[in-house]
Amino acid sequence: MSPLAPQFSDIQEAHKRIKSLIHKTPVLSSKSINEILSIELFFKSENFQKVGAFKFRGATNAVRLLSKEEAEKGVTTHSSGNHAAALSLAAKQLGIPAFIVMPENAPEIKKKAVEGYGAKITFCESTLQAREETLSKVQKETGATFIHPYNNFNVICGQGTVALEFLEDVRDLDVIIAPIGGGGLMSGTAIASKAINPEIKVYGAEPLNADDAFRSFKKGVLIPSGRPNTIADGLLTSLSPLTFQIIREKVDGILTAKEETIVSAMRMIWERMKIVVEPSAAVPLAVVIENRYLFKGKKVGIIVSGGNVDLDNLPF
Amino acid sequence: MSPLAPQFSDIQEAHKRIKSLIHKTPVLSSKSINEILSIELFFKSENFQKVGAFKFRGATNAVRLLSKEEAEKGVTTHSSGNHAAALSLAAKQLGIPAFIVMPENAPEIKKKAVEGYGAKITFCESTLQAREETLSKVQKETGATFIHPYNNFNVICGQGTVALEFLEDVRDLDVIIAPIGGGGLMSGTAIASKAINPEIKVYGAEPLNADDAFRSFKKGVLIPSGRPNTIADGLLTSLSPLTFQIIREKVDGILTAKEETIVSAMRMIWERMKIVVEPSAAVPLAVVIENRYLFKGKKVGIIVSGGNVDLDNLPF
Repeated sequence: MSPLAPQFSDIQEAHKRIKSLIHKTPVLSSKSINEILSIELFFKSENFQKVGAFKFRGATNAVRLLSKEEAEKGVTTHSSGNHAAALSLAAKQLGIPAFIVMPENAPEIKKKAVEGYGAKITFCESTLQAREETLSKVQKETGATFIHPYNNFNVICGQGTVALEFLEDVRDLDVIIAPIGGGGLMSGTAIASKAINPEIKVYGAEPLNADDAFRSFKKGVLIPSGRPNTIADGLLTSLSPLTFQIIREKVDGILTAKEETIVSAMRMIWERMKIVVEPSAAVPLAVVIENRYLFKGKKVGIIVSGGNVDLDNLPF
Repeated sequence: MSPLAPQFSDIQEAHKRIKSLIHKTPVLSSKSINEILSIELFFKSENFQKVGAFKFRGATNAVRLLSKEEAEKGVTTHSSGNHAAALSLAAKQLGIPAFIVMPENAPEIKKKAVEGYGAKITFCESTLQAREETLSKVQKETGATFIHPYNNFNVICGQGTVALEFLEDVRDLDVIIAPIGGGGLMSGTAIASKAINPEIKVYGAEPLNADDAFRSFKKGVLIPSGRPNTIADGLLTSLSPLTFQIIREKVDGILTAKEETIVSAMRMIWERMKIVVEPSAAVPLAVVIENRYLFKGKKVGIIVSGGNVDLDNLPF
């Protein structure tokens, strides 16, 4: 059975807990993108968050809720992405150890980031099985607490603080859109947004090439992704039982976007807004571009999830 | 004889005039860059200015000071860069025509930007002679007023508003650094900064491969640049008599940076600060990197001049 879903009050408490430890990221807008699309868009820019992604919120909330005994033994996770860096920095700031399991073939830049935050990396093969086995070995050896990147109550509460801040800054959004990978950000966004404004429409944005959430949502059954192949490398993971349950209940719809639209949207953000965002962070704008009719004349809030991109491997 | 140099009060009046027409751009900082360099850096981010560069300030100030008769006939300039786009938008907002002389081989993206603002483009060969001849033909035909990109009192006053806002936001800067091309931004920066705080050190930042200002400053004689070849394409122009006079009088020194340092600095800003800046805008950080000993422990303000970069031709 999956754990209980967080309530809005849990997200409010998370915000009080982590507020002084995170950046309150800016909400940006672009006159020229608004004119091109005839939609009033607002971008909550988590690319400016610590470690360059919203993941720092959930990781910080999770480590700050450890008991004294748990904290002493540290935290662990398997990830080659933003969650690994986020958990490493969150642990460092609390002065506790972090043990990160990473595939050997993870990008050099990600390894360096995690090392830079003082985490201990254990490398493994890149299969899910190898990751899980290595993680459980590390857990046994160290006694560290596993902080799952999204199937975790406290992590979801932390991610929900993005929408909480967003709706504090722009009260009258008609729509809010977040990217969906494992569904942690999406879950927190839906819980917070619907509690603040029950009339708001909440959409998930997913690459067409990794549309497990879209298919699961439609069928009403959790369908794990197969071998997704998308430039949006933060959105390769499948929903978990907990996030699927929340998303089924709270989200109004999931929209997908083609790879080429994701790249155009990313380029549009870089060129017009002069900010560096990663491909996953451009997926919400991409679904707006592919579904303009849904949003005409509306005030649409987009969560820009992160800005960690390998400048040596840009899609343009 | 060169025209008179602006006073600080002229810059203050320019700011009142253009304030509601420009963006007040943010001052950003990066903990990780500060740690790497052991210098406290502040970045006044004019890449977020309208048209993506500080040039919009000077162009707006200049067009708003035209007489009614002059305004009716419009404005003209020769430029393939940010000044052309800035003047076109400034003219459009005032509802007057802009006539831009551009070399045929100007980047497609610059042509489109200028066209997008409704300016009339006249193409010419890419030599300075062809540009000047074409410009004078356009002037004769249209009666438009020539707005020089930097050898112009009102343009310099507009560019000086960057430093005015910067020192309003961060009062206790020890140092302020601006890139030097034609010297318009540098002149305005020096006049405003020294008036607000006579103790502040004002430096110019120039590519080593286009170091005409460095050499002119050292010799005390205006030396035009030869055939500079630098990635910092906004800094190819030479000082004018007016800007050289101001810079000689007010600037504490000019520092240069190698091409590879400019690229590293640009990359550092993109990766660590998650903002898109053009190569010219990275030259001040590059000179800080090459001259760290000068700035250790100081509060250093850097003017990030613009963010217009061709994503199909990145140096990394």
